[in-house]
Amino acid sequence: MNQYALLHTPDSRYCFAVGRNEIVIRLRTAKEDKDIKVFLVYGPKYGFQEKQLELEMTAHYEDNLYKYYEKRLQLNDVRLAYIFRIEEQGKKWFYSEDGLTEDYSFPEAFYNFFQMPYINENDYVETVDWMRGAVFYQIFVDRFRVGDVNKDISYVNMRWGDKPTPKSFAGGDLKGITEKLDYLDELGINAIYLTPIFKSKSNHKYDIEDYKTIDPMFGTLDDFKELVQKAHEKGMKIVLDAVFNHCSMDMPQFQDVLKLGRKSKYYNWFMIDGDFPDPEKMNYECFAHCNYMPKLNTANEGVQEFLLDVALYWIRVADIDGWRLDVSDEVSHEFWRQFRREVKAEKNDCVIIGENWHDAYSYLMGDQYDSIMNYAFTKACLDYFARDNFNAKQMAEKLNAILMRNTAPINAMMLNLLDSHDTHRFYTELKCDKKKFLCAIALEVVFPGATCLYYGTEICTEGGYDPDSRRCFDWNTKNWDMDFYHEVQKLLKLKKNEIIQRGIVRIREVDELLLVERRLDDKKLVLKINLTDQKRDGIEPSGYQVIEEV
Amino acid sequence: MNQYALLHTPDSRYCFAVGRNEIVIRLRTAKEDKDIKVFLVYGPKYGFQEKQLELEMTAHYEDNLYKYYEKRLQLNDVRLAYIFRIEEQGKKWFYSEDGLTEDYSFPEAFYNFFQMPYINENDYVETVDWMRGAVFYQIFVDRFRVGDVNKDISYVNMRWGDKPTPKSFAGGDLKGITEKLDYLDELGINAIYLTPIFKSKSNHKYDIEDYKTIDPMFGTLDDFKELVQKAHEKGMKIVLDAVFNHCSMDMPQFQDVLKLGRKSKYYNWFMIDGDFPDPEKMNYECFAHCNYMPKLNTANEGVQEFLLDVALYWIRVADIDGWRLDVSDEVSHEFWRQFRREVKAEKNDCVIIGENWHDAYSYLMGDQYDSIMNYAFTKACLDYFARDNFNAKQMAEKLNAILMRNTAPINAMMLNLLDSHDTHRFYTELKCDKKKFLCAIALEVVFPGATCLYYGTEICTEGGYDPDSRRCFDWNTKNWDMDFYHEVQKLLKLKKNEIIQRGIVRIREVDELLLVERRLDDKKLVLKINLTDQKRDGIEPSGYQVIEEV
Repeated sequence: MNQYALLHTPDSRYCFAVGRNEIVIRLRTAKEDKDIKVFLVYGPKYGFQEKQLELEMTAHYEDNLYKYYEKRLQLNDVRLAYIFRIEEQGKKWFYSEDGLTEDYSFPEAFYNFFQMPYINENDYVETVDWMRGAVFYQIFVDRFRVGDVNKDISYVNMRWGDKPTPKSFAGGDLKGITEKLDYLDELGINAIYLTPIFKSKSNHKYDIEDYKTIDPMFGTLDDFKELVQKAHEKGMKIVLDAVFNHCSMDMPQFQDVLKLGRKSKYYNWFMIDGDFPDPEKMNYECFAHCNYMPKLNTANEGVQEFLLDVALYWIRVADIDGWRLDVSDEVSHEFWRQFRREVKAEKNDCVIIGENWHDAYSYLMGDQYDSIMNYAFTKACLDYFARDNFNAKQMAEKLNAILMRNTAPINAMMLNLLDSHDTHRFYTELKCDKKKFLCAIALEVVFPGATCLYYGTEICTEGGYDPDSRRCFDWNTKNWDMDFYHEVQKLLKLKKNEIIQRGIVRIREVDELLLVERRLDDKKLVLKINLTDQKRDGIEPSGYQVIEEV
Repeated sequence: MNQYALLHTPDSRYCFAVGRNEIVIRLRTAKEDKDIKVFLVYGPKYGFQEKQLELEMTAHYEDNLYKYYEKRLQLNDVRLAYIFRIEEQGKKWFYSEDGLTEDYSFPEAFYNFFQMPYINENDYVETVDWMRGAVFYQIFVDRFRVGDVNKDISYVNMRWGDKPTPKSFAGGDLKGITEKLDYLDELGINAIYLTPIFKSKSNHKYDIEDYKTIDPMFGTLDDFKELVQKAHEKGMKIVLDAVFNHCSMDMPQFQDVLKLGRKSKYYNWFMIDGDFPDPEKMNYECFAHCNYMPKLNTANEGVQEFLLDVALYWIRVADIDGWRLDVSDEVSHEFWRQFRREVKAEKNDCVIIGENWHDAYSYLMGDQYDSIMNYAFTKACLDYFARDNFNAKQMAEKLNAILMRNTAPINAMMLNLLDSHDTHRFYTELKCDKKKFLCAIALEVVFPGATCLYYGTEICTEGGYDPDSRRCFDWNTKNWDMDFYHEVQKLLKLKKNEIIQRGIVRIREVDELLLVERRLDDKKLVLKINLTDQKRDGIEPSGYQVIEEV
């Protein structure tokens, strides 16, 4: 047996509570170890030696190197001690905090068993339930729809449909979105994520001057309240973009520091090397290398209070359903902990979605976010659907590896996406292959977590990297491929299926097809994707099939 | 190369900040891979492709299976991207979030590099500096010394020196400790950890009735203030025992629930199955299976406020220097986060030491405790010194494995102990082998972190499991082995050495000796322990040597 491959960490993604009396335990082994049997030996922490039980575990997930055994346990005594017992062709081992051993001393087990010492009711992640079946539509507001015909449009500097530049303003607004809620509802959308809508000079509005004012280009507070209210009437959620890593240099607090330097009471809100910030010298920390976006010091109490007030304000005033956190990995962990505590106290099912492009486990342990934008999923889809870097087997392995990065309650809230305002359009990456695009969308729907479509996906909007990925939505339906649109619509409706929302997942390759299986009780749903150049199992090349067995 | 063995997790014990501009990065590989070279390829997150640098890493630690490479980096831009490059006899690999690959695509590195996204000043652990050189003396108060000759001793039911039973009261008190501060100071003690001293009927006082009153058996508030003040005058710290997992059934809040059941405003302070708690039926959660110690619901806000108030009260009123947290692994993580925030705001160098017997990484990530009672160290010492389960090589491997459980700033605060009120006396486990006992104490002093002696260690007090481990301190110096005492004294004085307090550590076996090396700049100190039955390197069997090279 390959003992180097063994991995278990208590109180982690390898052992986590999913309720007051229920835990999941995982053990990693080498995939090559096919003939081993793994048993969970478990019992109450106080009385482990006397009251052990044993259960065989099964391997649910496989990546390129490892196999992951998993067991869900109901507990009476939520003070659990456990070790693993492994058998391989007559040989027997124990695996504990002391590693793999041939013997195990139960009388001294209190020194080296694994444990879930106690399940406190405030220490496990509760899945925001609506996220399981959420189909998001991400809208870059300036480019979706002009709704307000009476507003001052003097800032608009491009014709609707022209190729955008970094400085383009097309005139899209909140009323435009409200006007199209029926359209989105019919498409199968039940949640909208808006890029920033607060006062800001830019078209993207990631440089915010005033966090409590709707940008006049986009509308008024009433327009926003109306959008949320009408969305809620249709059962749709609204998630806003929390740009808390940095602000605009036009924010009054930064302006005050520009003027007063160290004497400003906001001096420590920013991280400045010198008495005064100097945009030419860039002697203060910024987002990336953008001097017009000074970085906020989220370790500072004043900044923390200010941003928490903003977070709660929009829940209280407009009843929003979630925050997407911009550049969230650069913001202080300690700030996100406070953020979670206050946001959840105000509205328990308000979802918190970080923008972390990487393994974000240290933010997803239950004390900070609920979810992230799943760019690891994006990258896997690029490698499989667009770049031919992965075959079905490699794709199955990668998706399993992604699932094993986090606990099950977090996986059920992941925001799975193919593209966004920060990437090329996935359709363009696919060189406009509509069949493959549908396969990818099907995967995005059947994979655990929320599905997120970037606006225009349903009409095959093209686009390269920013600013090209931010084109105007084409409302001329004559240009639409209605077959494609209806196929997308059909796929999105699948997300209402309880098996997809709650079923356990198993992903593997069979006969060069990618199979994503979901099971709930004795119901089963399988997505099969064929990216080979031959018809297989009745599925055309670049085709997919969804089969539900009840 | 054994790719199953590779392990790196960003923002974890494998990559952590140790200051605003300094991080440590570790990579685990298989120990058997002797001919590999490991390079850290790193650069700014924004501009990784253009501005990468490369550094060779060295392997500092080895356990039974793995080797751990480590690098400490000073950063200008604290937004770090990195991957590893590995060479083995002409072969080259990259190791990133996507695992081990032959090629690496730098243009798309933003999808799969490892990263330290940003170092926020409130997100890294600051070592409580005095812990590096701390020599603790753990005192079970009832058994150390009777100091108050005027108190009501009607509760005392044993003669000083008799074998204790679970119900014995010997009369030790706070004045007794204050009286002996000079003694402890001379021994080399600079910190005292007291088992509980608050109002409670038992001799151990882990069942507390009133968290704000010093138990009259032990003295008064003034006695305690005097103890702390006099200790501080000598540069000694005082750490109290925070029994926050459970209380006494005599605590007024539990009594109220016994009387009023669900109608009591304290009903939710406890976890009761039914309308009333019933000690006979044990229908409420307890410590272990002790019905007289009802478990507090640390997820409850009322309980949280109550306990936080207690924590701050003793800092404010008596200026204590730390809290040792009883049964801390069963208390809510979220509570400990609040506890840390409030305690550190009140007194920044107040140390927080959990009683976790197991890998406590999920409590030691910077948001909860500073330290734990290092029972894994205890167990290793038992296996090496007392039970012949380990040879020097195995001991070196185990100690390295223990060090790799946590980050360097946490290791510098670990409370290393050979025994406590909850174990057999180490001296008894050693079958009274004084030479080995000195070797073990030497290791405890030279190993990174604080050293903690259980009262009586210096005079070879014997004792089996509770209650035998809680014998009365023998003040009759005629019974003492003064040679042993002086040797201990000499060892404890070593802890003042800056090399031991701050040097990097390397532990290995050479010629069947255990070598613990500490290095600070170009100064070096080595402890050599010989547990073989032959004289080696000039060291007698069961002997040790400390060599300082400057």
